[in-house]
Amino acid sequence: MTKVFTLSVDMLGSETKLNDILKGLNQSLLRNLNYKFRLYGSERAIKKKIEKYKRLIEVTEIINCDSYIAMEDKPSDILKSKKNSSMSLAINSVTENTADAVLSFGNTGALMSLSLLNIKTLKGIKRPAIASIWPNMKGESVVLDLGANTKLDSRYLIDNSILGASLASILFKIDNPSIGLLNVGKEDNKGKEEIKLASDQLKEISKNLGINYYGYVEGNDISFGRTNVVVTDGFTGNISLKTAEGTAKLFQSHLQDAFRSSIISKMGYFLSSLAMKSVRDRLDPRVHNCGILMGLNSLAVKCHGQSEYRGVSYAADIIYSLLENNMNKKIHDYVSEMHNKLMN
Amino acid sequence: MTKVFTLSVDMLGSETKLNDILKGLNQSLLRNLNYKFRLYGSERAIKKKIEKYKRLIEVTEIINCDSYIAMEDKPSDILKSKKNSSMSLAINSVTENTADAVLSFGNTGALMSLSLLNIKTLKGIKRPAIASIWPNMKGESVVLDLGANTKLDSRYLIDNSILGASLASILFKIDNPSIGLLNVGKEDNKGKEEIKLASDQLKEISKNLGINYYGYVEGNDISFGRTNVVVTDGFTGNISLKTAEGTAKLFQSHLQDAFRSSIISKMGYFLSSLAMKSVRDRLDPRVHNCGILMGLNSLAVKCHGQSEYRGVSYAADIIYSLLENNMNKKIHDYVSEMHNKLMN
Repeated sequence: MTKVFTLSVDMLGSETKLNDILKGLNQSLLRNLNYKFRLYGSERAIKKKIEKYKRLIEVTEIINCDSYIAMEDKPSDILKSKKNSSMSLAINSVTENTADAVLSFGNTGALMSLSLLNIKTLKGIKRPAIASIWPNMKGESVVLDLGANTKLDSRYLIDNSILGASLASILFKIDNPSIGLLNVGKEDNKGKEEIKLASDQLKEISKNLGINYYGYVEGNDISFGRTNVVVTDGFTGNISLKTAEGTAKLFQSHLQDAFRSSIISKMGYFLSSLAMKSVRDRLDPRVHNCGILMGLNSLAVKCHGQSEYRGVSYAADIIYSLLENNMNKKIHDYVSEMHNKLMN
Repeated sequence: MTKVFTLSVDMLGSETKLNDILKGLNQSLLRNLNYKFRLYGSERAIKKKIEKYKRLIEVTEIINCDSYIAMEDKPSDILKSKKNSSMSLAINSVTENTADAVLSFGNTGALMSLSLLNIKTLKGIKRPAIASIWPNMKGESVVLDLGANTKLDSRYLIDNSILGASLASILFKIDNPSIGLLNVGKEDNKGKEEIKLASDQLKEISKNLGINYYGYVEGNDISFGRTNVVVTDGFTGNISLKTAEGTAKLFQSHLQDAFRSSIISKMGYFLSSLAMKSVRDRLDPRVHNCGILMGLNSLAVKCHGQSEYRGVSYAADIIYSLLENNMNKKIHDYVSEMHNKLMN
């Protein structure tokens, strides 16, 4: 019998449209037949919109929520006062085993704090990390940490390497994904002490545990696709991610201006608009920007606050694939094996 | 009488073509009539190519060099063994007062080490920083440090703020450029201790010295043009810069693929190629990527290792403008004033 997976979805507290969420989940359901959903939001609004997705209705339970966590709410306030928010209840469903994973489009800091507090980290992992799937010239890579933990520490970098490699091996279906450590140069003497220490230890672990450590990579190597996994601390990763987002938007805005500059350019744009659309789709954060909270006992995923249905279905597909491949057990085994070997 | 400015140019040790350098300098000379040049490189090769630039010949002295610093040379080796390299001699010309500034396309680490050792830092500035002019949706901003000093320290961040503001005020001809401190969020409680400390001190200095401190900015704010100056440490800045370069290249590569995908797309590309070229020009690092070593007693500028003539003339124009506006004196006055006010 094929296993059924239940995904709890926090429907409130973001600018993502209700219909985009429902359409996205419905699309993912067509590919992942054993999905079930628990939707935390306004029952009345959801019931009205879900009608046209007949198959989705059958596998969905709606849990009515009046309260939600806003984007500007601070984690400290949330822990005290928003116990019945859609996000809190969606996270609780995972700890209470009524769901296998949680998806939210809302406040990242709140999702992080509430997940850490309730779902807790896997044994052997000290701090969770946010991973994302980043398009590159060869395909895609996993980049982490994108902002869960801003402290630079060799131990966290090694944990992130293990987490990232597990994610890449499942998502990209490769046995031994290559791991690069983000730094300001490729030479051994470059960068900060914590990074050098992590690099030395990763070389050691590569020999003993057979992980595929490539060495240092630089900022441009992320887009070149130099390695399957790029590991950094949450401070550097967050700034790198947002710089890339900003650059992509700048490029798009310049292109639009340029195409508007003459009638011939406008005709050119008209003829090439399909090609342009495919580029936008491949790089659009509303489609691709989902942050996977890794290192927790259950999977929690944060999608872009203005996701389109394609972004929702993409995220739901990823979650299904990770659940089906038993990612957390694999990480747990990897980490225990690593600890055992390093102890001996 | 208008003052004459002499620029020493290191012609060797990069992939920038000799003719691109000469054509670029010649173009800048047409705009900046009081420029003189000292070219450090192969006299024979330069003499052959410079013939067609009649005006340039008149204001140029060629200093023949047989030795050069390669991209892969390490700073430690250079200090010992490459005293007669084109780069070393070009830097010496500045300390010996035969030139006002130095321009190189070669090894950044070497230029940094040699400049620090020979030209030395301005009084009141502890460590130099590399600044660059970054295109954004509103125009351009100054971003620093891009890799001179990877240590995160509040003092360096404040120095970089002063250096960046001086540069922006001259380049963009604005009185009181806004300064943003790069961080992982806009709220006061975000980020690392050193950044919070720098932010508190910048608020204090804003009151006393009238600098225009905006507060925290995030990675995407660089491209949005939120502030005229973006300040960070050399580690974060380097990774941010290279991530942006990689993203721009990824975008271009996806666009090219997309345009090749069908005959209609190809036609569209043909019609819009002028528009596309203008976007490339506005974002191409071969044109715009010049790193200004700030905080030294004389100006040293590093251009992209594969610069085109437009990049060379752009860099030469910037250098002229900074010399003409007496940038270093302004920085010196700013820093002394700041120290005096903070002491009292």
